[in-house]
Amino acid sequence: MRPILTPAFATTLILAGGAQADDAALRSMAKEYFEPIPLQAPMLENNVISRDRVDLGAKLFFDPRMSRSGLFSCQSCHNVGIGGVDGLETSVGHGWQAGPRNAPTMLNAVFNIAQFWDGRAPDLAAQAKGPVQAGVEMNNTPDNVVATLKSMPGYVEGFDAAFPGESDPISFDNFALAIEAFEATLITPNSRFDQFLMGQDGAISDQEKNGLQLFVDTGCAACHAGINVGGQDYYPFGVVEKPGAAVLPEGDKGRFAVSETADDEYVFRAAPLRNIALTAPYFHSGKVWDLKEAVAIMANSQLGAELEDAQIDDIVAFLGTLTGEQPEVVHPTLPARTINTPKPAPM
Amino acid sequence: MRPILTPAFATTLILAGGAQADDAALRSMAKEYFEPIPLQAPMLENNVISRDRVDLGAKLFFDPRMSRSGLFSCQSCHNVGIGGVDGLETSVGHGWQAGPRNAPTMLNAVFNIAQFWDGRAPDLAAQAKGPVQAGVEMNNTPDNVVATLKSMPGYVEGFDAAFPGESDPISFDNFALAIEAFEATLITPNSRFDQFLMGQDGAISDQEKNGLQLFVDTGCAACHAGINVGGQDYYPFGVVEKPGAAVLPEGDKGRFAVSETADDEYVFRAAPLRNIALTAPYFHSGKVWDLKEAVAIMANSQLGAELEDAQIDDIVAFLGTLTGEQPEVVHPTLPARTINTPKPAPM
Repeated sequence: MRPILTPAFATTLILAGGAQADDAALRSMAKEYFEPIPLQAPMLENNVISRDRVDLGAKLFFDPRMSRSGLFSCQSCHNVGIGGVDGLETSVGHGWQAGPRNAPTMLNAVFNIAQFWDGRAPDLAAQAKGPVQAGVEMNNTPDNVVATLKSMPGYVEGFDAAFPGESDPISFDNFALAIEAFEATLITPNSRFDQFLMGQDGAISDQEKNGLQLFVDTGCAACHAGINVGGQDYYPFGVVEKPGAAVLPEGDKGRFAVSETADDEYVFRAAPLRNIALTAPYFHSGKVWDLKEAVAIMANSQLGAELEDAQIDDIVAFLGTLTGEQPEVVHPTLPARTINTPKPAPM
Repeated sequence: MRPILTPAFATTLILAGGAQADDAALRSMAKEYFEPIPLQAPMLENNVISRDRVDLGAKLFFDPRMSRSGLFSCQSCHNVGIGGVDGLETSVGHGWQAGPRNAPTMLNAVFNIAQFWDGRAPDLAAQAKGPVQAGVEMNNTPDNVVATLKSMPGYVEGFDAAFPGESDPISFDNFALAIEAFEATLITPNSRFDQFLMGQDGAISDQEKNGLQLFVDTGCAACHAGINVGGQDYYPFGVVEKPGAAVLPEGDKGRFAVSETADDEYVFRAAPLRNIALTAPYFHSGKVWDLKEAVAIMANSQLGAELEDAQIDDIVAFLGTLTGEQPEVVHPTLPARTINTPKPAPM
């Protein structure tokens, strides 16, 4: 865990009508913290983003037969139409069980330092193996996933094409790699903020520019920086003042469960703020539905700052500029089951 | 309910190598019973298939916030990627309750005489109002649906565009009309069978031609006819011999619950057989996973016929030719919720 940084640019408000010189200064400052989402999926270290692999991953992502019940797919909790989330406090999974944490978005997740609120998966492939096996989520087993895939000629062909030359392409590892390849394409470029970063002065309003300045001056950008405006490192929730148990449930000690280090109690990955206006409710507990309230809680608990209402409004306006172009995904036609396909077992 | 018809063409097998004259005779016979799915959505009597209305309907169809829990959308049980079904015996809904009947496909459903297994909804708009309110399905209320829609500017704009000139366009009735407009576009033209009907001799194999002939000669086409190869009228399940309670549960008396007429006990709409190879499991009970077994049960219970294995194989091969081009649907980006949007209540 990195220490909390002091804001590097404790500048005063410089906006007075959005004059060109001010825009240039604001942009220059912002570029010290942030960078735009690229137009295309990035290269990955241990995976290949081929069209065949992405197409296969899309099928797997949308296929509810990857769950034991036949009800849940990745898409159930990471909805491509709702900013990559499910809009629930915490997800509901197998047997109508409530999951422990709010579902994070998979949009732009490829740019996070690691996956899950506690960063326990180093990449999207490792992440993809989690929910499919979790008893409160998809409640499946790798063996049953592989048997399901091998039972359908459409998947046999899909894995052959996506993993050419492999002798036994249908494996749980390759299942995860294909999903990672698809998810790496789920990025949201050209937000109005990114357009501003790239030189379009008028892409964001004066109020939004004011919010950007406040976001940096107040210290938010100390943790919420980088390409995803967050998602790059881990910090304790409640640096200055712990929020109440309603927002920060005592039973969930965050990264402590991963590292077993006392310093990591209530430590979480700083939430990536891309598309944050689309992904209520907020925090790992999903207890806060209003982005204004979330900003106020963060300012107070992490920075000891009591923001005025108008300041919060400006920051929320700025956060709205982080909504990018949502991915356009054709719902895949899924391979037909056969009589050898394991039957779903919801009950 | 129409009486069971005697097959109009009790022809003997005419196939001997697929000669052109035989193909012409088979096609001519088939056209007495069946017609191809059109390339475009049909006109509707009480609805307008405008682009704005279809786009709105697509959003509503895919939006899980139309359910009380926030988990279920139309798409949950009528998956555009799985032949329009969920692949479960009976659907699982609110609170993990099992529904009473297997989810029928919405693909080509616009061509059915009426909707639901018992035909209790005259059209797709009336159908759309059912699951959203059913306690075991989406468990919502019209008032909560309307409040949810009115809370989101994206939907306010969508209804304004889809229902131009209306003073209060967001209503439960218009919600249903928009879904109907979208669903009317979910048709699957150009199946190999339809290509054969349209004159392409080689579109189906000799075995499939044999199966088509058997399908008619055995009497299947007496009920499973028309554009949807079924879905046009109501018939008792077990005309000749009632199948066991595992397949035909005693508690579900079918259309009797709609008409309260003794004649309608265990009467159901003949299943439309378009894309039947994609929509296991079968029957209103969803108890039969193997299409071969389903054909054998039908032949026995409805027609008193004991088919040989090879004959069943041929009929199943023919049924495989009813798989059409699956709709290509871009997953819609859904309107963002606001703080006025009713919260989901899964628990």
